[in-house]
Amino acid sequence: MKKKVLSIILCCFLLAGTSSLAGQISDATKSCLSCHSSVTPGIVCSWKESIHSQISPAEALKKKLLLRKISVTKIPKDIANVVVGCAECHTANHNAHQDTFEHNGFNVHVIVTPKDCAICHLTEVKEYNKNLMSKAYRNFKKNPLYHDLENTSLGPQVVKEGKLIYEKPHSETQADSCLFCHGTRIRVKGLKAKETEFGEMKFPVLKGWPNQGTGRVNPDGSEGSCTSCHPRHSFSLEVARKPYTCAECHKGPDVPAYKIYMVSKHGNIYFSQGKGWDFKAVPWIVGKDFKAPTCATCHISLIVDEENNIIAKRTHQMNDRIAWRLFGLIYAHPHPKEADTTKIKNKAGLHLPTELTGEPVSKFLISAKEMKYRTADMKKVCLACHTTGWVEGHFARMEKSIETANKQTFAATQILLKAWKMKVAKGLPSSIFDEAIEKMWVEQWLFYANSVRFASAMSGADYGAFANGRWYLNKNLQQMSDWLKLKLKAEESKK
Amino acid sequence: MKKKVLSIILCCFLLAGTSSLAGQISDATKSCLSCHSSVTPGIVCSWKESIHSQISPAEALKKKLLLRKISVTKIPKDIANVVVGCAECHTANHNAHQDTFEHNGFNVHVIVTPKDCAICHLTEVKEYNKNLMSKAYRNFKKNPLYHDLENTSLGPQVVKEGKLIYEKPHSETQADSCLFCHGTRIRVKGLKAKETEFGEMKFPVLKGWPNQGTGRVNPDGSEGSCTSCHPRHSFSLEVARKPYTCAECHKGPDVPAYKIYMVSKHGNIYFSQGKGWDFKAVPWIVGKDFKAPTCATCHISLIVDEENNIIAKRTHQMNDRIAWRLFGLIYAHPHPKEADTTKIKNKAGLHLPTELTGEPVSKFLISAKEMKYRTADMKKVCLACHTTGWVEGHFARMEKSIETANKQTFAATQILLKAWKMKVAKGLPSSIFDEAIEKMWVEQWLFYANSVRFASAMSGADYGAFANGRWYLNKNLQQMSDWLKLKLKAEESKK
Amino acid sequence: MKKKVLSIILCCFLLAGTSSLAGQISDATKSCLSCHSSVTPGIVCSWKESIHSQISPAEALKKKLLLRKISVTKIPKDIANVVVGCAECHTANHNAHQDTFEHNGFNVHVIVTPKDCAICHLTEVKEYNKNLMSKAYRNFKKNPLYHDLENTSLGPQVVKEGKLIYEKPHSETQADSCLFCHGTRIRVKGLKAKETEFGEMKFPVLKGWPNQGTGRVNPDGSEGSCTSCHPRHSFSLEVARKPYTCAECHKGPDVPAYKIYMVSKHGNIYFSQGKGWDFKAVPWIVGKDFKAPTCATCHISLIVDEENNIIAKRTHQMNDRIAWRLFGLIYAHPHPKEADTTKIKNKAGLHLPTELTGEPVSKFLISAKEMKYRTADMKKVCLACHTTGWVEGHFARMEKSIETANKQTFAATQILLKAWKMKVAKGLPSSIFDEAIEKMWVEQWLFYANSVRFASAMSGADYGAFANGRWYLNKNLQQMSDWLKLKLKAEESKK
Repeated sequence: MKKKVLSIILCCFLLAGTSSLAGQISDATKSCLSCHSSVTPGIVCSWKESIHSQISPAEALKKKLLLRKISVTKIPKDIANVVVGCAECHTANHNAHQDTFEHNGFNVHVIVTPKDCAICHLTEVKEYNKNLMSKAYRNFKKNPLYHDLENTSLGPQVVKEGKLIYEKPHSETQADSCLFCHGTRIRVKGLKAKETEFGEMKFPVLKGWPNQGTGRVNPDGSEGSCTSCHPRHSFSLEVARKPYTCAECHKGPDVPAYKIYMVSKHGNIYFSQGKGWDFKAVPWIVGKDFKAPTCATCHISLIVDEENNIIAKRTHQMNDRIAWRLFGLIYAHPHPKEADTTKIKNKAGLHLPTELTGEPVSKFLISAKEMKYRTADMKKVCLACHTTGWVEGHFARMEKSIETANKQTFAATQILLKAWKMKVAKGLPSSIFDEAIEKMWVEQWLFYANSVRFASAMSGADYGAFANGRWYLNKNLQQMSDWLKLKLKAEESKK
Repeated sequence: MKKKVLSIILCCFLLAGTSSLAGQISDATKSCLSCHSSVTPGIVCSWKESIHSQISPAEALKKKLLLRKISVTKIPKDIANVVVGCAECHTANHNAHQDTFEHNGFNVHVIVTPKDCAICHLTEVKEYNKNLMSKAYRNFKKNPLYHDLENTSLGPQVVKEGKLIYEKPHSETQADSCLFCHGTRIRVKGLKAKETEFGEMKFPVLKGWPNQGTGRVNPDGSEGSCTSCHPRHSFSLEVARKPYTCAECHKGPDVPAYKIYMVSKHGNIYFSQGKGWDFKAVPWIVGKDFKAPTCATCHISLIVDEENNIIAKRTHQMNDRIAWRLFGLIYAHPHPKEADTTKIKNKAGLHLPTELTGEPVSKFLISAKEMKYRTADMKKVCLACHTTGWVEGHFARMEKSIETANKQTFAATQILLKAWKMKVAKGLPSSIFDEAIEKMWVEQWLFYANSVRFASAMSGADYGAFANGRWYLNKNLQQMSDWLKLKLKAEESKK
Repeated sequence: MKKKVLSIILCCFLLAGTSSLAGQISDATKSCLSCHSSVTPGIVCSWKESIHSQISPAEALKKKLLLRKISVTKIPKDIANVVVGCAECHTANHNAHQDTFEHNGFNVHVIVTPKDCAICHLTEVKEYNKNLMSKAYRNFKKNPLYHDLENTSLGPQVVKEGKLIYEKPHSETQADSCLFCHGTRIRVKGLKAKETEFGEMKFPVLKGWPNQGTGRVNPDGSEGSCTSCHPRHSFSLEVARKPYTCAECHKGPDVPAYKIYMVSKHGNIYFSQGKGWDFKAVPWIVGKDFKAPTCATCHISLIVDEENNIIAKRTHQMNDRIAWRLFGLIYAHPHPKEADTTKIKNKAGLHLPTELTGEPVSKFLISAKEMKYRTADMKKVCLACHTTGWVEGHFARMEKSIETANKQTFAATQILLKAWKMKVAKGLPSSIFDEAIEKMWVEQWLFYANSVRFASAMSGADYGAFANGRWYLNKNLQQMSDWLKLKLKAEESKK
């Protein structure tokens, strides 16, 4: 214990020293560090190497606009001239936080939310709120169809009286799968005392925790989690710009974006040479700082050429340059107008952005004109390295993939509808995801059609062919068709 | 615009400066750079960091043979003493190029082809032409069986009058999947005017573009695309030597080479320590420059020991050290004698290097003696780190895997032939890939037998077991057999 | 040849020079190097860069305990003051080695075993022997059920008189798949003469070679292979600490640990930033040397904070911190008490740690109390970066996943048992892995339930959902149930 105290004193001394140039550590943060340097050394070390520990918001504001990483122009006085430490974030807006608790004389909250980050990064938070991702919990939970898909995907199924029955998935199971990416709703369930090396202390009991899903509903009512992409206490630009961040949620058979990137020419160049690139530079200079795009290049980062001409603006509204929603629900379709999709309903009354036949429910989706604008913005990024002919050729293929993958989803739907009509499967209004033919149908759009479209968008050949691609679109159709024939024959023989 | 002009002047000045030591930039290339530095800054930057921008062919020729990267001994005068810039490649052989167009006073062509590269790298191009890969378009398109496989893999299938019908795949779909790796046939469809920031200009309209497939048919009649492995304007040895390059086409379930490498001991060492190795050294010194092989080590690169004793010659004819064609068509078999396989026909009249029973069509395939030579050359690479006992043990397992995977492909074929004979599937002369049992049969050799053989060749255990390996060979056989039983019983019950 | 001799002289000279500071090269090793520098240059170079070539055991012993890499306190005199070279390992304990042979005047053995390594690394070897992995060959081969699974997984199946028959897998096939990871039994089959560049020499003929499986049975009777994780002649800590090492055997559908790590937050941070971390430091300082854990961090390495307070002790008994055996055999269950599991038998007489219904066979498994201790030790690692609330939340989810994945395995087992009872599948005492419904059942626990549990343990969301996760647990149950219905109906219609 003596050793600990000594190290705490030493640590404070050192910390005070290292950050004297660009900003002082606040007294409150010093107080946090005095214990947490030894209690949670891993995150304290990460923070010490982060930009947050090295510069005060006031200093950050002095940078030229193009080089600046904060987006407000006024900083609250109490934090303007200290570096951004533990207390600056974990005590911010403490009245708004249900997870605030008294901790050694401070009103601390466990979960730092987009609202807290917005004190300095307001534009980013505002933009982020316009993403579907920021409503990934809400959109998921309030849609009866998605709810049904969740229940029949997670199960568990059990055998009761010789029959398979779906039990309702446990909240821990949900948090461990769908909500891991979509985000949980964090609920505060009082305080609980715990023995620590500094004596007994009380901490809030949180349900749905831990979680860093993109649409997390936070104890201050905000939605989202900046730490989804800027993880933990290094708040690293480098991490957010590398494809592994996106891979956390976009690698599975439903959204194989990372896998496709990996086998694309872009991915090849990144994996082969990226170790020498500058992933921390702001703005990010094409050709100089990096030679091939990562996910962030095309979708988020501020990209310039060597003379600081802007090629792409920084945007945390990632759909700014996305015309299509490739992800099939159930068909690919023009991007929704609003991040909140809970209002979307098709003519059949289903909460879907297209009819079951594929026709888009246009009033909720962006117009052809808006699609053009977004595509044009995206193409500007491509044109930093490619000629117009190249770029047009690429996009023509993507549009054709959208068309044909939708077509093969429609073929699968026709078979499904016939199965429903002929009463060999139950279909609406009961679950449309719990029977053999229905699960085949889900895989048609959720796995194979998605793979084909993403493969096309990012040029990763085999994901459009044998790796969950067109081979499976066709094989699955055949299996659905064979299944239906067999069932209809069996029905006939009964008569 | 003023800013642009200024930057152009500045850029030319800088460029003239940086490359003054080893070679001057030609006036023509300076002219290209004057606009493209700002129009396509990404690729100009890449080129500036490439060897091409730093040395003239005449200087390159002065290097000792073992260190040399060009393979001709005479360089055309007009390019000998300038660095290899935009104009040197994009105006080369311009009369032979159907994609040549007038561009600011120059006869420029869009697509640089192996014929253009051969001006300096003749040996590499000649050797490359002896690869199956260099004919990947031709061999694919002129073989009715492969054509049938393409049609039934890509579809799309649609429902017409209650039946699933295969539509012919669209050319964009082909380019997006099979031909992405095999290469497209590039066709020039006239010129098209376009508004640019320098006024209206005309550019050729290219069909099948973009593409960097290995057997691309180019507008000058040549086949292949050096950029498949030496991507874009860095012409990087490092990229070509890293496994991500091969992964672009060799990662899917049909050719899981990269995945297997990843879990091999070789892959482990590369991924763990490779960041410190020298991927640019020529020749490439085993143990010093690298500690474990990548794809290029065994198949292509010039490998020496620390005293420059040659362990393996550089070869761009990758089959130089490959005795077997592991890739099942439909069975693994001795490597074809010639890169052009369009003449190959078996006794049954099918364009296949084996009979449907597995017997090789020997006259088109290399002899046992040639197989020995090639294997011996490959083993020399292994022996740089392993003892003879180790190497012999490894190859014995590979041969056994070829034998048993072929055997299980034969078992699947027997079931298929019975299905055809008993008329529960149509088979030849109609498509042999469009029915349920046929698709199962395809997966037996294209996915599972291939996985087992590649796993064995590269020591990646689970790809020979549960990861698309022998587990699936056996499970698939059982499913084929069960399917056949069910069908035969159904037929019987009709009588 | 002249050149070779010259280079050998030069090499010895250089080597003598480079290691003069921390230890001399023994005469015996010098003799080895005199030829092997040119015969197997790759491994000699690797060794030259290893710690073994740079320090003698006596010098290593002088280091402070926390920094020390060897675990004995007395070193045999003859090797104490020379660096650890070829001869020190390959002639150690030569009388115990059946693979010892006379080689240029030395009694050399090919395979260096844990017993040999134990001369300096005794604690590590003792601990390693307490792992299931160290008995991976024995436990596998002596269990009739595992044997049956091996036979039906590897095949090959052939068609005989119209029926599919399993042939016994060839030893080369076993070595190429299951035993690649489990380890082979190495057998010495006499000596064989071979022509070399130094004249005719005799070498031992080894069966089961090469192999670096974790439970390899060696020619000196020992079990295990240190080179599984510390590969080849660099004996690299860096390699063993990186996740690619574990991926060699833990990436397939049966144990997708690496894949899950890749999409976890930990993996993201490692892949994004790990290139700058210190993977060679001993002890390994959390936050300073590394910012996110790799497999080794949680399971093996000596972890300290910046003041050298121990967070986790080094252990080569990896189950020291593992309460549950997540890997389903057939159900996840408390970890076995002993590494040797050959004695385990359930009430039904099957060599399994649980009943077919899931009930654990407690007397062979660790107690609830021991599980608590192990979990507490593991949590200490987590707590270096996370709060208690976070850690408790994480473990609660893992326990829930174990419960529900076991539940869905039980549901699959109920369907299987009914199939056996109704005589539509044979079941015990014949093979329980060779029929359609049995193979479905195997995939339920071996692929899907395992994926769900590992996903939960390591926070890799989609492997608990669509990537071989719960989606497939439910789909597979449905297919099993449908298969059974179909069969029962067919049986009924016969009557």
